[in-house]
Amino acid sequence: MNKSKITVGVDIGGTNTVFGFIKENGNYLFSNSIPTQAHEDVHTFITRLAHEIKNSFKQYADNYILTGIGIAAPSANNFQGTIDTPSNIKWGKVNFVTLIKKYFQIPIAITNDANAAALGEYEFGLGKGLKNFIVITLGTGLGSGIIISGNLLYSEGGLAGEFGHTIVKPNGRLCNCHRRGCLETYASANGICRTVLDLIARYNEPSELQNIPFTQMTGEIINDLALKGDHIAVKAFQYTGKILGKALANLATSFVPEAIILFGGLSGSGELLLKPTRFHFEKNLLNIHKGKVKIFKSSIENGMAAVLGASSLVNKKINNHVMGININNNIEKNN
Amino acid sequence: MNKSKITVGVDIGGTNTVFGFIKENGNYLFSNSIPTQAHEDVHTFITRLAHEIKNSFKQYADNYILTGIGIAAPSANNFQGTIDTPSNIKWGKVNFVTLIKKYFQIPIAITNDANAAALGEYEFGLGKGLKNFIVITLGTGLGSGIIISGNLLYSEGGLAGEFGHTIVKPNGRLCNCHRRGCLETYASANGICRTVLDLIARYNEPSELQNIPFTQMTGEIINDLALKGDHIAVKAFQYTGKILGKALANLATSFVPEAIILFGGLSGSGELLLKPTRFHFEKNLLNIHKGKVKIFKSSIENGMAAVLGASSLVNKKINNHVMGININNNIEKNN
Repeated sequence: MNKSKITVGVDIGGTNTVFGFIKENGNYLFSNSIPTQAHEDVHTFITRLAHEIKNSFKQYADNYILTGIGIAAPSANNFQGTIDTPSNIKWGKVNFVTLIKKYFQIPIAITNDANAAALGEYEFGLGKGLKNFIVITLGTGLGSGIIISGNLLYSEGGLAGEFGHTIVKPNGRLCNCHRRGCLETYASANGICRTVLDLIARYNEPSELQNIPFTQMTGEIINDLALKGDHIAVKAFQYTGKILGKALANLATSFVPEAIILFGGLSGSGELLLKPTRFHFEKNLLNIHKGKVKIFKSSIENGMAAVLGASSLVNKKINNHVMGININNNIEKNN
Repeated sequence: MNKSKITVGVDIGGTNTVFGFIKENGNYLFSNSIPTQAHEDVHTFITRLAHEIKNSFKQYADNYILTGIGIAAPSANNFQGTIDTPSNIKWGKVNFVTLIKKYFQIPIAITNDANAAALGEYEFGLGKGLKNFIVITLGTGLGSGIIISGNLLYSEGGLAGEFGHTIVKPNGRLCNCHRRGCLETYASANGICRTVLDLIARYNEPSELQNIPFTQMTGEIINDLALKGDHIAVKAFQYTGKILGKALANLATSFVPEAIILFGGLSGSGELLLKPTRFHFEKNLLNIHKGKVKIFKSSIENGMAAVLGASSLVNKKINNHVMGININNNIEKNN
């Protein structure tokens, strides 16, 4: 029987790791997620991930063949195959591609998570037809993927930009990168929780959030309370949007993209975040740029932009030379 | 007689406009400058400029033919041929290419001054062999030209980035763009003069600069006094380098260039400015980027990078279809 080809797209976040089996047309067959457990050893994580992928694939093994794995991860270097000391996961520098090849002897590609999301948007989302745009991932941290003239922007060394570590407040909040005032300490899931604590400390307004300890607080909880009119929650979104909008205006001033697409956990809050972000973005843009750069929320459902982009990346790598693997790890030539 | 082809490169700055006759190999035959007179009507300026170019060309007319004019100007749009409301020259929005075509019926190309400098560095300067780098022009204002994968970065609308209008100090100094705290209000020839006044107001140390009114103050004067050990002048360079270094670190965090090349008036101060700039740049870089991005001063002599780049731009435009003009404005086919 002629099996159809699929690739695995993996999106490693600070909190959850999502993976999906992606068909050649970009539709996904299956997706699932496991907790990342940021303090866990990388080897244990990879064992868990490989097990989950192989286990999930069993039900498709009769009809499909896995041709490659594309991985989106923070601080990934696509040339070296490494993940280099991500701020929000305690792995240090590891050659992730080498490690995962022990479980899958098929082509593997890795890139920065925000770059993967940008590639996903470019091929399957709101970036279709655009040449210059920026994807901002608002997860545990804040990542940035930049598409210029239809290509992903990398440094010559393979590293992508880290807009989340733009310093927006001198002597501001301490960041996991050991510096102070980085954008992601304000504009991210973790950042908005820190903002809530700051607001509770500053004001006296009653808020449901006063009952929730920091370790239990999430962007979703703040989102739900903001929708119910909780003042602290509403203010937290306004402040987050203000910081993000101003920082994006500075970025757009140097780079003049056609659009900025927000992706990841916190972008799920939609207008709660978009409205203040757009307001402060426009307010801080140079006059000649005003009204020319749109800010959107990713339209790719279930936050799959990075998974789709990672899958697309490994498909590019596979190109004409396709090696396949079946679930028993027997390599077979598939063409 | 077979005349050799030359192009005119023009670099319009807030204070002076430099032009040169550039041979096909990038060497220049002649260069001169006229004051820009920023408050003058654009028509009067163009009449003066055209007169100077034609007059200077007379001595070369027997042996050379002018094939095109490349213009570097602030806020220029290379697609539309316009200069759109530059911050430091009071022209409003003008179609500069249409206006200058009244005097020269040859191919004209225009671009942002910092983009022209970036192109000049890419073809003839320290940018040779690099793929991703940024040129910062430190003239009356601060401009930025970004080369990515060997190409100039433009927006889809033809505008270049305006890194000088990144807001680095919320509620900081009022900028000509009507906003507050733009980088160029600190890091530019005008910016360092403002810093000197601020330092005189703050401290009591005696300084030669206390004898010089703001309207007479220049980057060169501050430079000369700093070299003589004048404390206020030295502090002014340190502060300028601090602001510039931090801002460049933020830019490099998103773009990860191979190098940053400083060009224009204030860059002439060399180590006085470079030393504090490099120090605060490295200090504020993300760990993974530290030591990977070099900051240089342009090596193209006499500040001709933008003139050479503008000339190179019009040469690209001329390509295979070369129309020439002799000094009497008679169009002749030349090939």
